[in-house]
Amino acid sequence: MMAILRSAATVENMLIKNSGLQATMDVLHGLPHATMGLRSISSGTSRIRFEPGDPLKLEDLNSNVLEAKYAVRGKIPARAMELERQLSRDPDSLPFKKIIYANIGNPQQLGQKPLSFSREVLSLLESPNLLQMPMEVLNLIYKPDAVRRAKRMMRDLQTSIGAYSHSQGVLGFRKTVAEYLSSRDGEPASAEDIFLTTGASNGASLMIELLCKGQESGVLIPIPQYPLYTATITLNNTVALPYYLDEESGWSLNIDDLERIIIESIEKGVKPACLVVINPGNPTGAILPVESMERIFVIAAKYSIVVIADEVYQENVFEGLKFYSMKKVLRSLQRRYKELFSNVQLVSLHSTSKGLSGECGQRGGYMELVGFSDDIREVILKMASIQLCSPVGGQALVDLMLSRPKPGDESYERDLSERSSIRNALQERSKSLWETFNNLEGVECRKPQGSMYLFPRLVLPQKAIKAAESLDMQPDEFYCTELLNSTGICTVPGSGFGQAPDTCHLRTTFLCPGTEWIESWELFHKSFYDKYRD
Amino acid sequence: MMAILRSAATVENMLIKNSGLQATMDVLHGLPHATMGLRSISSGTSRIRFEPGDPLKLEDLNSNVLEAKYAVRGKIPARAMELERQLSRDPDSLPFKKIIYANIGNPQQLGQKPLSFSREVLSLLESPNLLQMPMEVLNLIYKPDAVRRAKRMMRDLQTSIGAYSHSQGVLGFRKTVAEYLSSRDGEPASAEDIFLTTGASNGASLMIELLCKGQESGVLIPIPQYPLYTATITLNNTVALPYYLDEESGWSLNIDDLERIIIESIEKGVKPACLVVINPGNPTGAILPVESMERIFVIAAKYSIVVIADEVYQENVFEGLKFYSMKKVLRSLQRRYKELFSNVQLVSLHSTSKGLSGECGQRGGYMELVGFSDDIREVILKMASIQLCSPVGGQALVDLMLSRPKPGDESYERDLSERSSIRNALQERSKSLWETFNNLEGVECRKPQGSMYLFPRLVLPQKAIKAAESLDMQPDEFYCTELLNSTGICTVPGSGFGQAPDTCHLRTTFLCPGTEWIESWELFHKSFYDKYRD
Repeated sequence: MMAILRSAATVENMLIKNSGLQATMDVLHGLPHATMGLRSISSGTSRIRFEPGDPLKLEDLNSNVLEAKYAVRGKIPARAMELERQLSRDPDSLPFKKIIYANIGNPQQLGQKPLSFSREVLSLLESPNLLQMPMEVLNLIYKPDAVRRAKRMMRDLQTSIGAYSHSQGVLGFRKTVAEYLSSRDGEPASAEDIFLTTGASNGASLMIELLCKGQESGVLIPIPQYPLYTATITLNNTVALPYYLDEESGWSLNIDDLERIIIESIEKGVKPACLVVINPGNPTGAILPVESMERIFVIAAKYSIVVIADEVYQENVFEGLKFYSMKKVLRSLQRRYKELFSNVQLVSLHSTSKGLSGECGQRGGYMELVGFSDDIREVILKMASIQLCSPVGGQALVDLMLSRPKPGDESYERDLSERSSIRNALQERSKSLWETFNNLEGVECRKPQGSMYLFPRLVLPQKAIKAAESLDMQPDEFYCTELLNSTGICTVPGSGFGQAPDTCHLRTTFLCPGTEWIESWELFHKSFYDKYRD
Repeated sequence: MMAILRSAATVENMLIKNSGLQATMDVLHGLPHATMGLRSISSGTSRIRFEPGDPLKLEDLNSNVLEAKYAVRGKIPARAMELERQLSRDPDSLPFKKIIYANIGNPQQLGQKPLSFSREVLSLLESPNLLQMPMEVLNLIYKPDAVRRAKRMMRDLQTSIGAYSHSQGVLGFRKTVAEYLSSRDGEPASAEDIFLTTGASNGASLMIELLCKGQESGVLIPIPQYPLYTATITLNNTVALPYYLDEESGWSLNIDDLERIIIESIEKGVKPACLVVINPGNPTGAILPVESMERIFVIAAKYSIVVIADEVYQENVFEGLKFYSMKKVLRSLQRRYKELFSNVQLVSLHSTSKGLSGECGQRGGYMELVGFSDDIREVILKMASIQLCSPVGGQALVDLMLSRPKPGDESYERDLSERSSIRNALQERSKSLWETFNNLEGVECRKPQGSMYLFPRLVLPQKAIKAAESLDMQPDEFYCTELLNSTGICTVPGSGFGQAPDTCHLRTTFLCPGTEWIESWELFHKSFYDKYRD
């Protein structure tokens, strides 16, 4: 073909004469006629020219997209990737040997092992011919309960993990979710209310897109918040209505503030459409008290605000503490005060990416709808159907995450031990990092209760703040950049999540194994304060 | 906890007194004070009540979402699922035994087997412990070249298929895409220009969101079109600018019409931001002549319109015909007429869902950016990062789809035979369905060239059109509904894709195995015409 394409040597030839390509297709109109028809291209003679337009510039793009920010993969992580490339070219060119990615909750990137039982089942689902093999061969590789589970899930799939599922997700898997929820909350749950999603982010952005009508609507978000929410709000050209969590009282909610924000917003013509609750908190690591949840539902009921409960860290709760779901609290209120809370709508989000599963790359998740009418559920189903379906492997992982091997199953002991070692490692590292922070000059950090993050407050010296200003940086951005440049530890400045005015924070995961990186952070911090102490 | 929650018997108790729940958390403020603070709830006495708001209604939702339509999973498929439930309750209650889902290109749902090589590799990636096993055990189950490939891909992954990848996709997999493109087109391609996406739909909607500024912008879409485009346009509250494909001439493009539409649109203050080309066509099954592509690039260059080339059926091209990519044609134009076409921006979309891979549920895909500046690419990367990453299993499948076993590899012969049997089955079934249509009264159908669909035109009798009217249906919707009710065959009316005024069509896949369903369609059609013949 190339020879033919090259044979037309000038634009006039191409646009006026048959280029010869016609011979390759039998359905063409003659080119001269059609091309002459480009009237405004034609200069009135048989010579045809056109003036090419300008190439696309940034200002030609959707301004909502331009304005959206996502700090977790923002400037500092981009700089970290640059440094990583430099290290791979020249391993001795920097004061550290590798990048510690503490900017994102990505457990398996940092060496957390996937749970064997889940992966054995997925491995079988991907190669369904295996299930036809003699058990004595299969059992060399897979535990018998993994084989049984894969067979059950193949029945749920009906055909193949490679077929589009129902847009709401595979019914059998949704039933598993509903069983898990019933047992978690002691409240009935139904597969009809479950939508399997591409991670939790997909559910959150779908609901915000559904509920918000541009600048007439607002989304109440906690500050600090996970920046998916601000990004999605900006992409949807809707209004962020921040409510501050109070750091002094362990990141609790101030209900007076919340109601004041709502009233002011309504007065300005912005209807708060939904309220985001992140529990356990990201980035704060705090667990929301049940009373705060009850108050949120009073607000939700009074002002007809849909509650979006981001509960992806529900399994990441430290010893001695307990996770109560928003749904459990709502059902209890409804039982006691039916008429007052019967109108409340709640969406709860969960994900395979966090917890002890840590399967971020598989993009599994679900949302449970509570209190939605059938016609609204139909609209949600239509939105899901435009995306066709969430990845079926991720859907299967949701089922596997919520239904583990039981006592007596061949994988039970191994699964228990894998899970408790992940849990213990997370808790120990969070403790050790927290203790380190607590001993550092100018750092205040709440005792972690759950999630995968610490969000220490930095009280930075004026000199450091001035140094940041001179580089046109936020003070916390400056600290995080210096930390990265000195130690290879990649974190996210508090400004990426929002924070009270004149405060500085950073978010770090405690997923990275070992303690060396914590020690190198400590050394960096001391020398930073030595350099900038007022 | 339930006991405690129940102990508060009235709303006054809950809102005024400590509910006792406080004991479960140590970070609470006293409830009375905080609750009293809900000033507008307070009636001024110590008794606190509030008036619950109205529950959410349809009209409270984003009207763009309400208006979006997606016929492929619309009313008729919903009716088919109802009938399927009825059949499972009572198998003898309908004039057929099962539903034939010809509404959607979902090959594995209809019995197409996944390619064994791809699935063996995926199975190994999901259970990486397997790769540590002795080869003599592994080789009982997996071909050696699948093991080698999985090891290479594990190196590309660096850690695990369960870790978030780079938001643009795993670099090693993107390199495979670039190598495939270089060899397909004979034109250089770079991994930097490849974004791995969640199916092709994700790439299409991302680009439309990026390029369109609400009602100031428009998207040129072919009519008939794949309804993802109209749905995405409506969700983004931007303007659809339909250009008609000419059925008589094999669904070719009329360049005069296209330019007229652009000029009129600009005059109305709507800037055409992008132009969608679907080649091979969905739903038309037609292959776009190279000359039509050249004309599209003239238009794109002259009016600075980004071309979105939906090329997901590039592998579904029938014998004797050849697929030419938009990029190959553009590069040829640029070589000959550099100054005229140097500003053109093109995005090409591909997917693991179609072709011979048929892996819809795994949600793999990529887009190649051609001619975009670095700053715009950065914005696209930011958008991808807000979604974190596409499913890593789907990313791996993209790599596998584009790099098959080579002669000498242990899987080579099996792979060749699996692929040619899929290809032959598709071609045979399309031919047999096309021949059937050609012999039916009132049906005209272009000879299929590629994709997975036929899009026959129905010339319906006036009596049938009146019958449709009396049921408040479009004529083609009426025909498809009757077809479903009589035979269980589920198709999509042409009105779901758009069609020339006063014409009727339907889209059917030719994926369903066997010929019985074709025979039952023929019988239905005859009796339909017998009933309604004028």
